[in-house]
Amino acid sequence: MSKGKAAKQPRRANTRGYLMPIGGAEDKKDKKLVLQRFVALAGGPAANIVVLPTASGFAQEVGVIYDALLTHLGAKKPHVIHIKKRAQANDPDVIAPMQNASGIFMSGGDQVKLMSLIGGTALEAMLKARYEAGAVVAGTSAGASAISEHMIAFGRGGSAPSFRMVNLAAGLGLVKGVVIDQHFRERDRVGRLMTALTFNPALVGIGVDEDTAFIIGPDGQAEVIGSGSVTIVDGRGMDYTDVYYAKQHQPIAIFGMKVHILTAGCGYNLLTHSPRPHLLPAEESTVREAASDENT
Amino acid sequence: MSKGKAAKQPRRANTRGYLMPIGGAEDKKDKKLVLQRFVALAGGPAANIVVLPTASGFAQEVGVIYDALLTHLGAKKPHVIHIKKRAQANDPDVIAPMQNASGIFMSGGDQVKLMSLIGGTALEAMLKARYEAGAVVAGTSAGASAISEHMIAFGRGGSAPSFRMVNLAAGLGLVKGVVIDQHFRERDRVGRLMTALTFNPALVGIGVDEDTAFIIGPDGQAEVIGSGSVTIVDGRGMDYTDVYYAKQHQPIAIFGMKVHILTAGCGYNLLTHSPRPHLLPAEESTVREAASDENT
Repeated sequence: MSKGKAAKQPRRANTRGYLMPIGGAEDKKDKKLVLQRFVALAGGPAANIVVLPTASGFAQEVGVIYDALLTHLGAKKPHVIHIKKRAQANDPDVIAPMQNASGIFMSGGDQVKLMSLIGGTALEAMLKARYEAGAVVAGTSAGASAISEHMIAFGRGGSAPSFRMVNLAAGLGLVKGVVIDQHFRERDRVGRLMTALTFNPALVGIGVDEDTAFIIGPDGQAEVIGSGSVTIVDGRGMDYTDVYYAKQHQPIAIFGMKVHILTAGCGYNLLTHSPRPHLLPAEESTVREAASDENT
Repeated sequence: MSKGKAAKQPRRANTRGYLMPIGGAEDKKDKKLVLQRFVALAGGPAANIVVLPTASGFAQEVGVIYDALLTHLGAKKPHVIHIKKRAQANDPDVIAPMQNASGIFMSGGDQVKLMSLIGGTALEAMLKARYEAGAVVAGTSAGASAISEHMIAFGRGGSAPSFRMVNLAAGLGLVKGVVIDQHFRERDRVGRLMTALTFNPALVGIGVDEDTAFIIGPDGQAEVIGSGSVTIVDGRGMDYTDVYYAKQHQPIAIFGMKVHILTAGCGYNLLTHSPRPHLLPAEESTVREAASDENT
């Protein structure tokens, strides 16, 4: 089909699912708020969940852990797909459980390991198709990074940007125009995220703290849940950077970045790139009062 | 004199000096770029330098160190003023060397100790008068914080703002409308600086890295020197914060902060709050070429 024809077709209704980049170390002992939301978005007791522990160096153990956790949270026993070589990610028998997945959970570990094993395979294509058809795709830590189109592959911590502190690679590209980083405040990653944006200020950076998720809805409206915050670094208005003059680990100059810090309940519109406050206690009570006024 | 009368008087020419907030740990062994600039701005070999090691818990030793360093850099032997109790800061004999100071250097240590000992004393008044008359006032670490009007007294490290992570106090107020923080990248202080700005978004935050100085000229034009960078956090355009709902160490939401990262050679206009790029190698050579063109 030609591009022109595609453009003339009526825009399909939004059937795609939710994305849940998680900053790593999501609570697994107490309220399990983040994992609970994943199960709910996947369909609750009816959910067909696939766990991809591929990023992890301890994939077997990680698979067992999420199997137990998700089952405990009321989901059916998930399918854990183990990929140790690329051939497996193209093997119909291995990847079959993905076909009906309503929820896909990618573990932490090393996002380079994950993408180098599944990038360009039938498994990746199926994962994307399931997302387009309504499945929720969650990724924690490395799994969160992989959701980006331009993925932070690895880098160094530190709050000050420097030329060589970040390395990008191609991710799954489930969300365009943003770079997702994780363990954000805990590993002091604002420097590497800002550096990534200097390479192409068209991108917007999303730094997700541990035990925190940035839930992106099919309509491009995102919401923060969990105990930490999400830092948005908007480099689109960047007036100046000297990154193309910097060498090695020299600090780089950046003028005109916009920063938003979003806590649980705050929202973000990925189409307009504007943050939305959460309902504050007073506003909530005003809403409640207004609602009760209507009843009198 | 009434406020009205003062306002009608013609504005005096700029006779005030330079301010040099230094992020701490300035190089004392190698090129000593930052200290060298201080000596130069104070008048070089003719400088009358006063060292105030008051912030330090080892004031005696710190006094000896800066005495040796500044002398080594070509200054006359500096006067070290030791203040152990407030009465000394009001004693004309003790503070006499301040009367002719062309350069004043405040050491690191604890800015609360410094201000609680000299705040409101004759020594503080004399320091301000010398600055108004053209002396350069430098402060490293705690001494840099004290230059602010609204001074960060103490706080916690971490990149994510939280309600109780910063405590403000009244500083010297040599520069208005800004909050200066130090050891900025090394101690991960962007969270506490942002938090300080949520309390009153009229302020602009200036975070100075170690071995780095933000030199503020009499005309409000500032320049960065040293091996690190200076982070400007401009909260004036803040759209939203929920700081007044947060409790204890709860994370807080902040929307719409502007951030500039300035490296050595970059400038900043404190009147318009706009950053200025440094001359890049190419531009420098263009300038050189243009200059040599003029000679042909």
